[in-house]
Amino acid sequence: MVVSLSLRLPSLTSLFSPVTTTTADSLRRRSPAFLRRSRSHRFQSQQLPRPLFAARFSSAQGTAAAETASEEQRVDSNAKSRVNPDRDRVITPRSQDFNAWYLDVIANAELADYGPVRGTMVIRPYGYAIWEAIQEYLNVRFKETGHSNMYFPQFIPYSFIEKEASHVEGFSPELALVTIGGGKELEEKLVVRPTSETMVNHMFTQWIHSYRDLPLMVNQWVNVTRWEHRTKPFVRTLEFLWQEGHTAHATPEEAEKEAMQMINVYTKFAYEQAAIPVIVGRKSRAETFAGASMTYTIEAMMGDRKALQAGTSHNLGQNFSRAFETQFTDENGQRQHVWQTSWAISTRFVGGIIMTHGDDAGLMLPPRVAPIQVVIIPIWKKDDDKVGVLDAASSVKEVLQTAGVKVKLDDTDQRTPGWKFNFWEMKGVPLRIEIGPRDVSSGSLVISRRDIPGKQGKVFGISMEPSSLEAYVKDKLDEIQSALLEQATSFRDSNIVDVSSYDELEVAISQGKWARGPWSASDEDELKVKEETGATLRCFPFEQPQGNKTCLMTGNPAEEVAIFAKSY
Amino acid sequence: MVVSLSLRLPSLTSLFSPVTTTTADSLRRRSPAFLRRSRSHRFQSQQLPRPLFAARFSSAQGTAAAETASEEQRVDSNAKSRVNPDRDRVITPRSQDFNAWYLDVIANAELADYGPVRGTMVIRPYGYAIWEAIQEYLNVRFKETGHSNMYFPQFIPYSFIEKEASHVEGFSPELALVTIGGGKELEEKLVVRPTSETMVNHMFTQWIHSYRDLPLMVNQWVNVTRWEHRTKPFVRTLEFLWQEGHTAHATPEEAEKEAMQMINVYTKFAYEQAAIPVIVGRKSRAETFAGASMTYTIEAMMGDRKALQAGTSHNLGQNFSRAFETQFTDENGQRQHVWQTSWAISTRFVGGIIMTHGDDAGLMLPPRVAPIQVVIIPIWKKDDDKVGVLDAASSVKEVLQTAGVKVKLDDTDQRTPGWKFNFWEMKGVPLRIEIGPRDVSSGSLVISRRDIPGKQGKVFGISMEPSSLEAYVKDKLDEIQSALLEQATSFRDSNIVDVSSYDELEVAISQGKWARGPWSASDEDELKVKEETGATLRCFPFEQPQGNKTCLMTGNPAEEVAIFAKSY
Repeated sequence: MVVSLSLRLPSLTSLFSPVTTTTADSLRRRSPAFLRRSRSHRFQSQQLPRPLFAARFSSAQGTAAAETASEEQRVDSNAKSRVNPDRDRVITPRSQDFNAWYLDVIANAELADYGPVRGTMVIRPYGYAIWEAIQEYLNVRFKETGHSNMYFPQFIPYSFIEKEASHVEGFSPELALVTIGGGKELEEKLVVRPTSETMVNHMFTQWIHSYRDLPLMVNQWVNVTRWEHRTKPFVRTLEFLWQEGHTAHATPEEAEKEAMQMINVYTKFAYEQAAIPVIVGRKSRAETFAGASMTYTIEAMMGDRKALQAGTSHNLGQNFSRAFETQFTDENGQRQHVWQTSWAISTRFVGGIIMTHGDDAGLMLPPRVAPIQVVIIPIWKKDDDKVGVLDAASSVKEVLQTAGVKVKLDDTDQRTPGWKFNFWEMKGVPLRIEIGPRDVSSGSLVISRRDIPGKQGKVFGISMEPSSLEAYVKDKLDEIQSALLEQATSFRDSNIVDVSSYDELEVAISQGKWARGPWSASDEDELKVKEETGATLRCFPFEQPQGNKTCLMTGNPAEEVAIFAKSY
Repeated sequence: MVVSLSLRLPSLTSLFSPVTTTTADSLRRRSPAFLRRSRSHRFQSQQLPRPLFAARFSSAQGTAAAETASEEQRVDSNAKSRVNPDRDRVITPRSQDFNAWYLDVIANAELADYGPVRGTMVIRPYGYAIWEAIQEYLNVRFKETGHSNMYFPQFIPYSFIEKEASHVEGFSPELALVTIGGGKELEEKLVVRPTSETMVNHMFTQWIHSYRDLPLMVNQWVNVTRWEHRTKPFVRTLEFLWQEGHTAHATPEEAEKEAMQMINVYTKFAYEQAAIPVIVGRKSRAETFAGASMTYTIEAMMGDRKALQAGTSHNLGQNFSRAFETQFTDENGQRQHVWQTSWAISTRFVGGIIMTHGDDAGLMLPPRVAPIQVVIIPIWKKDDDKVGVLDAASSVKEVLQTAGVKVKLDDTDQRTPGWKFNFWEMKGVPLRIEIGPRDVSSGSLVISRRDIPGKQGKVFGISMEPSSLEAYVKDKLDEIQSALLEQATSFRDSNIVDVSSYDELEVAISQGKWARGPWSASDEDELKVKEETGATLRCFPFEQPQGNKTCLMTGNPAEEVAIFAKSY
């Protein structure tokens, strides 16, 4: 069956609008907010940055940067070569409009941009470097725990998706389908990978024969596609990047142990690297992955107190192995279906980092995932001072780089120091080092913490002596890492309310908080909560309070508390 | 325009055949050889490996492994727990059928497998680990030379592809098109990225405003799709993995310098890491990338003397910047189109490594890209000896691992040492360490080189003392690395023939060699060579002989020699 292609030439407008691929229906469904932000972003991205926060630096000329006496010499020094931004770039205050703030941060910090196809995202170098930090950490952990990387093709025969009943139900509305290849209509449509359980099982069935082939534990770092209608950069995009681990085991106990091991790897990553105090727990039946027996999740509280599902680990039981006849011969010569897991973390996590730590000044990055941990700003007024200051700055850079610190020296003379202060704050760099002529004479420098605004975060007279400087900087980075986790933990804990009735739950949710209470009610009751309050059951946390419990909804005995929250 | 989906359920046969997605036309065009190998591979992959080479190890029981006195104790020792392979796994001799040998090596060494969709490939952990070694090296070089990683979406509006005339001509026959998303027919078809120049330029146009935004130098590690009709694992697959670098510059000189820099990075990688003595040069007009002004290439000679284009770097000139209006304001306030480059290396390179170094025994990996550099085979006959041998083997593993050597201890008692020798030779591991009871008593071990067969490659009595062992092993790995490059270089040089006439060229090509001769003839003459001899103009090598030259085809003066060869 060969069908000729009738490809229309789009107008220039459609080419350069963020929506080139739509149907009348998707146009109606598209979020107006997304479109508006998209347009304003496109507009803004043509402009040069300006100092962002009038309260702290009252003009674009940077003169108001003089917060301290020592800073007076630091500003307005390179005015002759300064670029005068022709329009303002503003980040909406976080408290005013969290979503607008989020999109402004992404645009201004150059983390991502909109792709030409609706809902797609270009991950720009600075945003991608955060993803690389996530990859570097997790990749090592995955290998340590016995997994190998590999690659499965992204085109999945449509029939594969249909083989596991709940899987097809969950994924079929979101599929992108390739129907034409090499100029010919295909006999069978191909699904662009939304996740790979079906492909994995098709291959596992060929590789697994006996118990000696188990466990089989692999992972891939790839792109996946889900035709989402409401998109948001990093959080939910039509195409995103992730890792998906897939394992097969001889017993249900081993599969369960693996699923738990991997959610624990994610939890440790979230706490120790991303400084995000996630709640780890089990999903309800209704929220379990399409095709899984059990889904474990890490749930993170964003700055607007919405929950973000930041990583999941599924015990797939024998659901896919039965659908694909993935069997092995056990030690007694019996044929058995394998027990499986899958687990994933995606570029969504980058969105989680932005929305957990960011503030009105922009991004705030935990040192362990920051592409740049320390930025050095040299400051000079007279040309006589320039060489000495730049020499000192270069030496400091060298010292830190050799010590393994990710350091950037911003020595351009096209911007004022005040402009640079703002810019790198907005980019979320944890530490700033300032070096001026007086510092050079005294062999010292000034260090400012991103997480503590103004004078409080600033220390003068730090010695440039290499070993002490290295120790000081590393110590400060550790302090910031801990401080961000503490701050996020205290924010989280002050926004989780223990509830014992549905009324209390409704109040907590209406206040934007998370509600935690005993739950043993039905799937229908869970749906009722969702419909009436907009909150979903995020998880049954592993950490459970002691004592007898009474279901907040039914008054029946309950084994566990559950957490309800509005979510992304 | 909404069209309902009519998805047919395929039969079970179509599901598990390697060809689920075909048209009558592609069925006709498909290489019978590929299909045949595919089926035999699928069959073989169900079996367990057996010792591969009767000449060296004459039976599956491993008794013939006794090449030397000291090996007598090394074989047939764990027979009681040995698995008896129920069918043979054979690698076709390389000299008999190079293509069959290649596919056998890929299947038996578990480098890759066929995906369910025609022409797609599953890259298995051992094959993927070679790709990871390539990535690790190149990723560092790319960053050192000023490039940042990022990610561009894989769905490209069809209209983008049409904007650069030669680009659409080159790529339109190979496109995979998404026409349905989220259950609805799309208004504009989406191309699944075959390469990203059009997408990159669409975004660059939004990011580049003034000369201060230049150079812009990025790279991405991604999957790409080209609807190839004749496929071969790693060498040419419907979907493959690669990196694509994209840069924009203010001047043609800078773009040229960048294109040259990157082909030099590839060349250095090929020589120093992959031990492949590529010929670096410039493509002819006819062989230049669709949309480029100039293509630089590295051409590698495979074991069957066919050429493999192993990496390319393109000077794109202003072709894409004019098509996409990617402009900047220069220092004089004038609007100019940017000058661009792009450059890529793909998983095809893994195929190049296999086909350069492999021999009848299977894969042979250069130490610097080998996932396992040293395999340790413990050998014991009596149970009394087992503990001592395994303890010594573990200590040796620990010593080498700590020294940064990639080492594997094969301590399973389900296989004989003879079986293991064959297996790891077939997997191409550069060094094998054997430790038996006598070795334990004497505190020494035996080391065999993969690249030197039999006694010649074997050294007895190497001390287990950690520092001397570490030094010895590292030294041997370096020796093997150099030896593989030397061997490949001498093979290459003995198979390039200098020709001064078309007759001589025809003879050289008919002998399976590369022909190098002065060339200043037309594109039509180049096509004639291709049609009459099957050879293409691989490149005008950078390294040129001195002296006056006369075109081998026309007798006119020629500036340069060109290399002609049959190729993959």
